[in-house]
Amino acid sequence: MFNIKQSNTEKSFLEFVQKIKAYDSAQSLLYWDMVTGMPEKGVSKRASIISLLSTEVFKMSTSDKMKEYLDNFSRQEVNKDLDPVMKGIVRECKKNYDRFKKIPEDKYRDFVRLKSEAESIWKKAKQNDDFNLFRPYLEKIVDYLNEFIDIWGYEGNKYNTLLDHYEPGVTVEKLDDIFTDLKASIVPLLKRVKDAQDKPDDSFLKEYYDPATQEKLCELLLEEIGYDFKAGRLDESEHPFTIGINSGDVRVTTHYYPHNLTSALFSSLHEGGHAIYDQNIDPELDETPLHDGASMGIHESQSRFWENIIGRSYNFWKSYYGKVRKLFPEQLNDISLDEFYRAINKVEPSMIRVEADELTYNLHIMVRYEIEKALINRELEVAELPEVWNQKMKEYLGIEPENDKEGVLQDVHWSNALFGYFPSYALGNIYAAQFYNTIKKEINNYDELISKGHFQPIKEWLGDKIHKYGKLLTPTEIIKKVTGEEINSRYLIKYLENKYSKIYKL
Amino acid sequence: MFNIKQSNTEKSFLEFVQKIKAYDSAQSLLYWDMVTGMPEKGVSKRASIISLLSTEVFKMSTSDKMKEYLDNFSRQEVNKDLDPVMKGIVRECKKNYDRFKKIPEDKYRDFVRLKSEAESIWKKAKQNDDFNLFRPYLEKIVDYLNEFIDIWGYEGNKYNTLLDHYEPGVTVEKLDDIFTDLKASIVPLLKRVKDAQDKPDDSFLKEYYDPATQEKLCELLLEEIGYDFKAGRLDESEHPFTIGINSGDVRVTTHYYPHNLTSALFSSLHEGGHAIYDQNIDPELDETPLHDGASMGIHESQSRFWENIIGRSYNFWKSYYGKVRKLFPEQLNDISLDEFYRAINKVEPSMIRVEADELTYNLHIMVRYEIEKALINRELEVAELPEVWNQKMKEYLGIEPENDKEGVLQDVHWSNALFGYFPSYALGNIYAAQFYNTIKKEINNYDELISKGHFQPIKEWLGDKIHKYGKLLTPTEIIKKVTGEEINSRYLIKYLENKYSKIYKL
Repeated sequence: MFNIKQSNTEKSFLEFVQKIKAYDSAQSLLYWDMVTGMPEKGVSKRASIISLLSTEVFKMSTSDKMKEYLDNFSRQEVNKDLDPVMKGIVRECKKNYDRFKKIPEDKYRDFVRLKSEAESIWKKAKQNDDFNLFRPYLEKIVDYLNEFIDIWGYEGNKYNTLLDHYEPGVTVEKLDDIFTDLKASIVPLLKRVKDAQDKPDDSFLKEYYDPATQEKLCELLLEEIGYDFKAGRLDESEHPFTIGINSGDVRVTTHYYPHNLTSALFSSLHEGGHAIYDQNIDPELDETPLHDGASMGIHESQSRFWENIIGRSYNFWKSYYGKVRKLFPEQLNDISLDEFYRAINKVEPSMIRVEADELTYNLHIMVRYEIEKALINRELEVAELPEVWNQKMKEYLGIEPENDKEGVLQDVHWSNALFGYFPSYALGNIYAAQFYNTIKKEINNYDELISKGHFQPIKEWLGDKIHKYGKLLTPTEIIKKVTGEEINSRYLIKYLENKYSKIYKL
Repeated sequence: MFNIKQSNTEKSFLEFVQKIKAYDSAQSLLYWDMVTGMPEKGVSKRASIISLLSTEVFKMSTSDKMKEYLDNFSRQEVNKDLDPVMKGIVRECKKNYDRFKKIPEDKYRDFVRLKSEAESIWKKAKQNDDFNLFRPYLEKIVDYLNEFIDIWGYEGNKYNTLLDHYEPGVTVEKLDDIFTDLKASIVPLLKRVKDAQDKPDDSFLKEYYDPATQEKLCELLLEEIGYDFKAGRLDESEHPFTIGINSGDVRVTTHYYPHNLTSALFSSLHEGGHAIYDQNIDPELDETPLHDGASMGIHESQSRFWENIIGRSYNFWKSYYGKVRKLFPEQLNDISLDEFYRAINKVEPSMIRVEADELTYNLHIMVRYEIEKALINRELEVAELPEVWNQKMKEYLGIEPENDKEGVLQDVHWSNALFGYFPSYALGNIYAAQFYNTIKKEINNYDELISKGHFQPIKEWLGDKIHKYGKLLTPTEIIKKVTGEEINSRYLIKYLENKYSKIYKL
């Protein structure tokens, strides 16, 4: 589609870039194998090989050779003649080079070591519900990030530099507006839901559901929504994830809980959404840094679209509930489609983000966003976190954790220095609702397609509007191109109000 | 066990060597995944990543950096102070360096390309039973090998140089003697077997055996003989193989045929034998080129020992036949232990090496050995192969193939230029019988252990005498150390005569 014409320098640069990507993909497979089926005695060696390959990727990405290429292709008279794909590749490589090369090498190495230590300390702290154990590590991480931001530079707010790593184009200024709007709508909506008389009963979802049958169901649903099993596979791991080894090999995992029907099911749809994205990036972008999602938020919009907007819709279950009931007749014969639909959409403010429903999920993100922003701007001390966390949970969700384990210590992200990442989850929901609003206009029998389980036109629409571009377009460009608008939380608010007003008869 | 003390140069050399090994092991995992469970659309990218990593291994192994290390450690005054492990590592690296570095780079690259082309042409030729299609490729391969042998140099016979790649210490002069003796005993023994009146009936082995139950059986047997599932796993692939990813991760595969009870079963024992070897190499040799079998022949001796000498013995089935019968009562309830034992040891000259029984197997090897030797010494033209193959099959096995597909085209080896490799299979059988003779003397309740299924002392004996040394000792040293003798085919002859005289009541 892009009709790439290359000079010899471009060819040799592409070969270099492909080599980096190849190492990356070897590393991905080694990781996938480690968490799905590696014999336990292989673990220490495996970890060191993964780290060796990742060091090589780092070295190549920040090498003199890379600099030479980038210097050449950044020269005005050369750059202007590059085709869009080459321009995109150069842009991404340069971003990466600048990000890592500006940090002195020994400082960066120390930082990597700190993160790895911090993660294992965080695990222990969470297990023992002991925030103070983790505190000094988190303080050091915040210090490092502050130092790095000074080196990298920033515009407006320091936190913008971190946001840029995951969601280029999104700033604190924009996010503050978006989240203020969201909060102003969701908090009162949540209150009305909590006060509603007629609440869904989801107790039947916690009966025993044979894991092997759950697996069949997940396979079926993935197949139905258009996940290509000839270019992927479904396995079990502790935490569900999607991993692209190469364009013809994008794997998903889930986790089966015997007493939970919906966990594996919706996480499969979620990961399926990520994987369909990766499977449908234009093959011409293969083996380049553009063979990736446009941003974390755009990627998340695809997983949320399939998991929530489609997967938790009434129309979807019109075609699939019968099949689920056939697989689990004992548990579901007495449950009507309406009861099932309401149960899978039950709203309940809870402590744990990853278990949150569609309505409260974004509130969890806002709590984290405000804390991260304040930490990076030195408006908050790490020591104050547990208290602030609990206050904010009260403010946003109306509940307070009883301990730090299910409070401030619940997520792994901060131990990995992943500051600026959390907002992508909420942005994914916002983008997904914007895409939903557009697709309903452009595919006028959308509802009928969903209720008949005909997803091909929808998959194609997403592929054509979003997936095929990979990382060639920025998230801002994609949103604008697809919806004609900027990022806009109004559609998510409308979607949530509509949906929950009906379910809770508000 | 080896008490390694290292200088700084030694440490940095070891790190370099470990890096090579790490790439190697990444490549192994990528290959394993490709043939056990990779989605089909991943294949082309996977092949290119494997080849990229293998090129890196080649580059490092033949780099100036490697040369510098080797030059340093080869200097008399440095070398004499190295401990045996370091000496071994240097020896192996040097062997490798010399082998590849002496060939001009572009010639080597052409050769690698030729091999890869030749393999795919061979596949087609075999499929279409068209030797002439393959002929020009094989001619080129023989030419290249001849040229390489001239570059590498040789002593006595040209073929010795190729033998040395797989079985250092074994020469044409030795092999000719060994195979002459073997032939002189096996050919008449085979004739007596063919003329025997009371032949085993193995038709019941071809009934339907549920593959899932076969898998359980293979798992059980692997567990019983001491294969460590915490440092490995069993999967299915088209052709059975063993692959060491690292010392804590040595995987085996098999292939289940619904109408064949013994194929998966004995191939599991066979691969289990290879894997137990790799799992029990001294951990101090980890991540060095010494963490490998002493030679192809010694490795094969371990697989043959578990597959044949133990796995096809009467005593073994004393303890396990009951279990197999329990898993497949319908098929086996009317079959006695004696009938089962005779069936799994049925001798029948057949066209295909990989399906051959213990007695005829070595004859297949001799046919290939004589042809390879003659080709390399220019005493035979490639064009003559089909005719010569058929003559020799007649001479050794008393049968002639009806086409080249089940004749000269059956094995992949020659398309990969693996000349000198075939003899290792027969040497494995010879070594195994020598070890068997020794172990019976040193563990005096050996027969009792086997018939009770107590393999621990046997596994330990093999570990202590053979496995732990990895590639530290040469095959010649190991045979001498364990048996007190040189390589000696007498024990295999005695073993075969004993075994088949009883089974066929000769």
